[in-house]
Amino acid sequence: MIRFDSDYTEGCHPSILKRLEETNMVQTPGYGEDEYCKRAAALIKQAAGAPEADVHFLVGGTQTNVTVISAALKHYQGAITATTGHINVHETGALEACGHKCLNLDTPDGKLTAKQVEDYVEAHFADESFEHMVQPKLVYISNPTEIGTIYSKEELKALYDVCRKRNLYLFLDGARLGYALMCKENDMTLSDIAKYTDVFYIGGTKVGALFGEAVVITNDELKQDFRYNIKQRGGMLAKGRLLGIQFEMLFEENRYFEISAHAARMVEKLKEDLTNMGVTFYIDSPTNQQFPILPDTVLEELKKKYSFSYWNRMDEKHSAVRICTSWATKEENVDELLADVRKLLKA
Amino acid sequence: MIRFDSDYTEGCHPSILKRLEETNMVQTPGYGEDEYCKRAAALIKQAAGAPEADVHFLVGGTQTNVTVISAALKHYQGAITATTGHINVHETGALEACGHKCLNLDTPDGKLTAKQVEDYVEAHFADESFEHMVQPKLVYISNPTEIGTIYSKEELKALYDVCRKRNLYLFLDGARLGYALMCKENDMTLSDIAKYTDVFYIGGTKVGALFGEAVVITNDELKQDFRYNIKQRGGMLAKGRLLGIQFEMLFEENRYFEISAHAARMVEKLKEDLTNMGVTFYIDSPTNQQFPILPDTVLEELKKKYSFSYWNRMDEKHSAVRICTSWATKEENVDELLADVRKLLKA
Amino acid sequence: MIRFDSDYTEGCHPSILKRLEETNMVQTPGYGEDEYCKRAAALIKQAAGAPEADVHFLVGGTQTNVTVISAALKHYQGAITATTGHINVHETGALEACGHKCLNLDTPDGKLTAKQVEDYVEAHFADESFEHMVQPKLVYISNPTEIGTIYSKEELKALYDVCRKRNLYLFLDGARLGYALMCKENDMTLSDIAKYTDVFYIGGTKVGALFGEAVVITNDELKQDFRYNIKQRGGMLAKGRLLGIQFEMLFEENRYFEISAHAARMVEKLKEDLTNMGVTFYIDSPTNQQFPILPDTVLEELKKKYSFSYWNRMDEKHSAVRICTSWATKEENVDELLADVRKLLKA
Amino acid sequence: MIRFDSDYTEGCHPSILKRLEETNMVQTPGYGEDEYCKRAAALIKQAAGAPEADVHFLVGGTQTNVTVISAALKHYQGAITATTGHINVHETGALEACGHKCLNLDTPDGKLTAKQVEDYVEAHFADESFEHMVQPKLVYISNPTEIGTIYSKEELKALYDVCRKRNLYLFLDGARLGYALMCKENDMTLSDIAKYTDVFYIGGTKVGALFGEAVVITNDELKQDFRYNIKQRGGMLAKGRLLGIQFEMLFEENRYFEISAHAARMVEKLKEDLTNMGVTFYIDSPTNQQFPILPDTVLEELKKKYSFSYWNRMDEKHSAVRICTSWATKEENVDELLADVRKLLKA
Repeated sequence: MIRFDSDYTEGCHPSILKRLEETNMVQTPGYGEDEYCKRAAALIKQAAGAPEADVHFLVGGTQTNVTVISAALKHYQGAITATTGHINVHETGALEACGHKCLNLDTPDGKLTAKQVEDYVEAHFADESFEHMVQPKLVYISNPTEIGTIYSKEELKALYDVCRKRNLYLFLDGARLGYALMCKENDMTLSDIAKYTDVFYIGGTKVGALFGEAVVITNDELKQDFRYNIKQRGGMLAKGRLLGIQFEMLFEENRYFEISAHAARMVEKLKEDLTNMGVTFYIDSPTNQQFPILPDTVLEELKKKYSFSYWNRMDEKHSAVRICTSWATKEENVDELLADVRKLLKA
Repeated sequence: MIRFDSDYTEGCHPSILKRLEETNMVQTPGYGEDEYCKRAAALIKQAAGAPEADVHFLVGGTQTNVTVISAALKHYQGAITATTGHINVHETGALEACGHKCLNLDTPDGKLTAKQVEDYVEAHFADESFEHMVQPKLVYISNPTEIGTIYSKEELKALYDVCRKRNLYLFLDGARLGYALMCKENDMTLSDIAKYTDVFYIGGTKVGALFGEAVVITNDELKQDFRYNIKQRGGMLAKGRLLGIQFEMLFEENRYFEISAHAARMVEKLKEDLTNMGVTFYIDSPTNQQFPILPDTVLEELKKKYSFSYWNRMDEKHSAVRICTSWATKEENVDELLADVRKLLKA
Repeated sequence: MIRFDSDYTEGCHPSILKRLEETNMVQTPGYGEDEYCKRAAALIKQAAGAPEADVHFLVGGTQTNVTVISAALKHYQGAITATTGHINVHETGALEACGHKCLNLDTPDGKLTAKQVEDYVEAHFADESFEHMVQPKLVYISNPTEIGTIYSKEELKALYDVCRKRNLYLFLDGARLGYALMCKENDMTLSDIAKYTDVFYIGGTKVGALFGEAVVITNDELKQDFRYNIKQRGGMLAKGRLLGIQFEMLFEENRYFEISAHAARMVEKLKEDLTNMGVTFYIDSPTNQQFPILPDTVLEELKKKYSFSYWNRMDEKHSAVRICTSWATKEENVDELLADVRKLLKA
Repeated sequence: MIRFDSDYTEGCHPSILKRLEETNMVQTPGYGEDEYCKRAAALIKQAAGAPEADVHFLVGGTQTNVTVISAALKHYQGAITATTGHINVHETGALEACGHKCLNLDTPDGKLTAKQVEDYVEAHFADESFEHMVQPKLVYISNPTEIGTIYSKEELKALYDVCRKRNLYLFLDGARLGYALMCKENDMTLSDIAKYTDVFYIGGTKVGALFGEAVVITNDELKQDFRYNIKQRGGMLAKGRLLGIQFEMLFEENRYFEISAHAARMVEKLKEDLTNMGVTFYIDSPTNQQFPILPDTVLEELKKKYSFSYWNRMDEKHSAVRICTSWATKEENVDELLADVRKLLKA
């Protein structure tokens, strides 16, 4: 079985295992107060051009989303999100379990627009029953989104400007941030992300780490007492050094960006070749998740050898599936998949 | 100012105040364990043809919704609701504050269909990531809905059947139940409601009481320890007798139904006359909430004398507004409103 | 059965019912935005010498406690309370259901001392694992306490000073506030309460109203968006006028204080006479709850005619019980009880 | 700096790193549905003599405690715990953040007794206001406790019997379980733990793993839908294989028990030698946490070279500190510490 069903099918970048071995018997204090975490935080602040930021390391994405959002909100406030947002769909109501409502806005492409957000907030406060509704206070976006699309710098800046104007926090979920930043269509740097958000996270789990997400807080209002929140939401790893070591390795020698670029190359090859075969896509994704539409008969054959995620029925005989590349994708596997698809489509 | 903006603009049916006075200095135990509550519960069980039901009295609608729903759900379960459902829109996230997500289904008329519910539940359990999503366990409907529409007996039974088949609870919010049961289009009795739901409530606040909602639980699974939930959610009134006395008065001598019928007569007059004037409606509501579409210029004039709720902009020059009748609506006020609208439309 | 088991065994002061009748068919807007609420708030601000305060009306005590406390706290913060505090013992974990921990301090008399609070807060922040513990942020006290004791002005001021110094909020639960203010030992006015707390509430349910608690917020930090919290916690009464009318009646013509003074006179008689009979008390309470220790045989006889609350076993043959007076206590009933106790003790 | 301040100062047992390397590029499905997790679960069930148990792997202790407890409780139910219990003291209110109260019982040694639990539950249901208090439903114990003490088989069985009788769940927090099972005073096996609890967990973080806790559920009532809870509470690791691999290594070749035995040997040496020097202890702990009482002057010197946790001031000149050994403790470090203490005490 060759797996393309997700971007977390392998372990981690070899440099991480090597470093874990080298440091294994070094004694450190716990809970992220060790030297590895400090250095990793420094590397990230440097890469993000955000020397004043606070950096915290958490274990997984759902945990990170609820910790950040619940830390930012009062009980009666909620998070604006695309209806397709991860917090709204795929976290088993973790945010609601912290008491907060997802305020859903429908989008064609998984991306919120500045206008949408502004209209929503304006409508809230204009309503005579506004106190009977959850107050919007934070905007949650993911980049890339859950369906692979990305924000342009202009779009992000516009969202950030609305947030400033309307007294909202802008939080960017970067579970796959590397794959956004290194794709061909992207026009943003990590510094832009830091500049045009109040808080964001850099995903490790899907981009070369065993696990781990690095939260970068640039808005001072969100910095205070953040570690209480991490502990309360179960995200404070006793051996925090593991997170420090991983992000040190990822942010040394530009590694995070280079391994993301590999995934981008693999996906471009995939996308281009499939397009050349006449395959169309459920959505035009520029990043490491692709949603080709294929005949069910072809998919049936492919399933014997490859894993991918079923996404959507398109018509009686065609379905969209999700195929992921990652830092770990082997080019020979992509080639093999493409050859098989070509053969099956011709048959 | 003549008020048509809601169905809780007056105090209560005079029989209630009279009874409060007669009993004022009688000493009773607290927290709903008095004789008035017992008798009121007996009257309601009789009226609902549900001798085995448990009846509890709470103070308000939001409180009742969250108490019932959170009592029925485990932490990872949620409530299916129309997107327009009161719990989703107008309770400031009270249900989420108890940890539970609203699972929203879009509807044209505020009513869930059995098929919609079944498809949603089927899709949930068919999804390979089902554990990453909130598990649907309760179906929340309101009758009449938030936009005045009502369920037919057949529709309710179909929902109930799906709930049995899919192991869901069916909860009916009857904040305005009297106005549904006594409207011309209705084909259900209170017994039907009791028969085809697992739990429902009979609204007092909007139908003749000062305040108060009577929860009727027919499913044994939902009966256990319910009073702990009432207390935890802040709904256990110290002087519970006040609730008992009010529901005694409402369910003595068929009063609840008779005063609801008055509201129905008032609304029929309103609807018929407006229709005759050529007025159209935002939605075809058979109950005490009407949503006429009127020229903004007419509304501007009406506002000087009447209160109503702004509902929706229809085009550049027309808006829908909400006009409510209730048990307390004076016919002369309806007549006056109609005369004024007629005059303004002609002008 | 003559009831002494609680201070909410009767309805309400007759002036309230009279006013409810007079205003019954007057139309008002809902949710506490009517003229009665405005006037009641004005009367309370005047009585409390706090013209800048915000006043909100809620329905019951548990609801009020959780609404105020959860509004004041971030998720990782908790409320310091005496272990005997109502929020810790008798609210079915309502505060925890909002996500907040009770930080319990043991006391001999139900009262927190300034030193206790200061030591606790100092210890919290001195602990190297402070982020692994709930951060203390609010101090909850009740006056009178759950066992009838009261704070002196000096004690309250000392607590308030510590709260200022340590950046804590001081919240006073005044479910029975009238009975504290009008008892012989008291040296505080309502203005002192307003001056030396950040927020407090004036209990109506136990002091002459059918129901209702008036929250008085003097600290600006706690004022913002408070109504969202009321709605979310289920405390926003649709017919808010009912609360306005009740507190208008209680704060017109000094009524709240006068009816409280009646309860105080009744309890003094009770206490003095029992003491003269040689009866001792579980705790020396100066307010309307008394905890006499009586032989079980005497209690057995009294139970046939009177209701009271069992409190604590003292030895094999004696128990403490709770006896309450209130605004509604009839002097003849007190006399009868005293006569019966005297007779039974002699027998 | 030689660290004795906790039992998580090093990385992990070398076999784990080795296996992580060997399997690093193997592709697996995510979220704990891989072959490593399956095999690890099988090994644990075998070691625990519990073939019918469900085994789940979570990341950390706080997360595990709240996931298990909140999964077992309805909203109005709480967990009985020693006041010193980890859930009550050192989890930043994580359980309360899930809506549940800790029901604290004071103990001299961190251990709950069967009688204590039974008395508490009996008192709850005997109280006439029982619905106004949180209902006890689960008993939380830790073995070893937070202060190093352990349960005997007889004590555990007695607790389990009370739980059966009173319809409670018994949950054992085994964050340091290996150190309890392998200490000299212990009379239980892992099978006994499985037999006399409804659910427990085997700590990896403090016993040889990088991180990870293995939850073992033996009571069928607690098995259903458990993975929803894991996901909702942020504990479902994307690369679940990491947990599987670690527990495979720990439960292959008896490793978990052997490395625990090493910690036991180290602590025995420490305890015996200190005792021989005349040192007394804050509490008589048979496990890897020791609480010697030493002169502050001695501690001041030791701090320059060793880390340990400050525990409690005993008198003006003496303090208790916590010293931990673990699977990773080097005997030469223990020897050095003992030599230094001996020298300093003589000086």
